[in-house]
Amino acid sequence: MITLYRTQGTCALASHIALEDAGADYTTVRIDFASGQQRSEAYLKVNPKGRVPALVTDRGTLTETPALLAYIAQTFPAARLAPLDDPFAFARVQEFNSFLCSTLHIAHAHRMRGHRWSDDAAAHEAMRRFVPQSVGAAWELVENTMFAGPWVMGADYTICDPYLFTLARWMEGDGIDPARFPKILDHRTRMAERPSVRKALAVETA
Amino acid sequence: MITLYRTQGTCALASHIALEDAGADYTTVRIDFASGQQRSEAYLKVNPKGRVPALVTDRGTLTETPALLAYIAQTFPAARLAPLDDPFAFARVQEFNSFLCSTLHIAHAHRMRGHRWSDDAAAHEAMRRFVPQSVGAAWELVENTMFAGPWVMGADYTICDPYLFTLARWMEGDGIDPARFPKILDHRTRMAERPSVRKALAVETA
Repeated sequence: MITLYRTQGTCALASHIALEDAGADYTTVRIDFASGQQRSEAYLKVNPKGRVPALVTDRGTLTETPALLAYIAQTFPAARLAPLDDPFAFARVQEFNSFLCSTLHIAHAHRMRGHRWSDDAAAHEAMRRFVPQSVGAAWELVENTMFAGPWVMGADYTICDPYLFTLARWMEGDGIDPARFPKILDHRTRMAERPSVRKALAVETA
Repeated sequence: MITLYRTQGTCALASHIALEDAGADYTTVRIDFASGQQRSEAYLKVNPKGRVPALVTDRGTLTETPALLAYIAQTFPAARLAPLDDPFAFARVQEFNSFLCSTLHIAHAHRMRGHRWSDDAAAHEAMRRFVPQSVGAAWELVENTMFAGPWVMGADYTICDPYLFTLARWMEGDGIDPARFPKILDHRTRMAERPSVRKALAVETA
């Protein structure tokens, strides 16, 4: 049994969808950011980073979305969520997920989490103002140089797709018009119709 | 044949060391950041992100350090640079590398690359001031909750080790006293004595 610790509106959704795609036997636990539950003593025992997602397995807890997604793909190979027998193709998957994690998500985080990188309120505001530009530039790279279509990696759906979908839902909040990125917008629309995505979103918003 | 595009003092060193550890047949090309070569038309054809590292293989170019390190481990399995047959243990490796990439390296980048997240000079200065605090907190997590010893993952040397070594060399520049982190400092000292590390550093500083 696998337990995913998650919070609505976060990147934990990507792993949630991937667990559905994998047909995994899993449950989820909601961590309430509004009351600061991610910094509670009990949760810090699960994840000393005080973040979500965290995936509790019978061998221990795993964190970091790119690691979780690859773990899910490798643990449920029958679901064919990554090209597991081809190191180059697998590296392409990891390259994409690493970019989303360390460039796109990080740029987005400067809108609400500026306290991670400064204790100056004026700097937080300056970071917030710049988000449409930095996040927009990252989306341009995805749209123009990374997205193969119809899925991120081309013909085959992979763990890149739920991750892309999860972050693409943040565009409007980041002040970015999705119409600038027709491939990503079309992907987001198609993803929203998949049963695995509908199920994960229903649990998130319950 | 593999070609690594690199710049001295960057995280490309991690992949450089891993290629040495793997016994790979490779060459490297230095990109000169001082003259802005990473933004040149020629280099943007290699890597549209305008960054290093980039690893050119006979099937195409790969980027993002966590992806490169896993690719090197999977492509040269005889070097045993990652637990390739154990998805949980492999996920631990990836979790560590993802944390270095998206938390530790990102915190560090706010010292010199604030322009990625703001166009305000005062905000850049505020970010720079905060680096010892944010990077220091990330090192505390590594020292206290992640580093197993004697290598990052425990008894076996993995691709986590050259990545940790590469980032640990930035401590002093980030205003952090390595003596606060005895396990990491000891690791850095032992790593510096390895032939693969000596060779990569000799090429970097040539």
